[in-house]
Amino acid sequence: MTKKALYLEDLNIGDTFKSEEFTLSKNDIITFAKQYDPQDFHIDEDLAKDTFFNTLSASGWHTAAATMRVLVDSIPLASGMIGAGVELSWPNPVHPGDTLSTTSVIKDITYSQSKPDQGIVVLESTVTNQNNEVCMINTSKLVTFRSKS
Amino acid sequence: MTKKALYLEDLNIGDTFKSEEFTLSKNDIITFAKQYDPQDFHIDEDLAKDTFFNTLSASGWHTAAATMRVLVDSIPLASGMIGAGVELSWPNPVHPGDTLSTTSVIKDITYSQSKPDQGIVVLESTVTNQNNEVCMINTSKLVTFRSKS
Repeated sequence: MTKKALYLEDLNIGDTFKSEEFTLSKNDIITFAKQYDPQDFHIDEDLAKDTFFNTLSASGWHTAAATMRVLVDSIPLASGMIGAGVELSWPNPVHPGDTLSTTSVIKDITYSQSKPDQGIVVLESTVTNQNNEVCMINTSKLVTFRSKS
Repeated sequence: MTKKALYLEDLNIGDTFKSEEFTLSKNDIITFAKQYDPQDFHIDEDLAKDTFFNTLSASGWHTAAATMRVLVDSIPLASGMIGAGVELSWPNPVHPGDTLSTTSVIKDITYSQSKPDQGIVVLESTVTNQNNEVCMINTSKLVTFRSKS
């Protein structure tokens, strides 16, 4: 990582960050789901056919976790990416082998009145697949710090 | 699983579901975070001391995924637990060995006007630790179906 660490005062509304592309394989999807979200549509291609999804689809929690990985790698907040809260939606499912990427935009910045060294940054991250379909929108409230200097 | 499968018409505002207890070990926390959220406070006890958390703490995505597992096991929705969207907050961190459990309450039910076989159930799941501290609140909009009969 050679990116410059970002403090609260370095960030502006509208700043945009693009992630690397990432992919969830069939094996990745089934392995994650067997541990955390063992429902037919996430763990078995045949059983998935008779479900809401019609075909094997990643757990939304898997998409969220894999997205966190590329956000951590692409947005170098100096004190780390610390979520106070988040809103997620999953407009389209993620299928095995989909090529995903994330574009994140700073939507709001609030400086704390009581803790002058910190603020809340609202970051909206949109995950799209190779067909430009939106698979997840993650709107996070991130606890972010000023530099100590 | 001998629980009766639940359809939309079986659910009422105020219905409450309690999960089994669950625990994230130090190894669980580090293994998950190395793959999905490799930040100092989630992957290394020593490095965590100089961070916002002061001590090794689970990734919020790990807490969310592990919570999904106990929700799937404790709430037998007939067509599965299908999230259209969710709001999460993490009021307190999860530490290795904490004993967690989840209480879920149906807060709202909306029947679809355009798709009479389905509705949206708003489920608020509160994750507490052994000291009765709230570690996560998950408010999910679940796509839920009527029975076909």
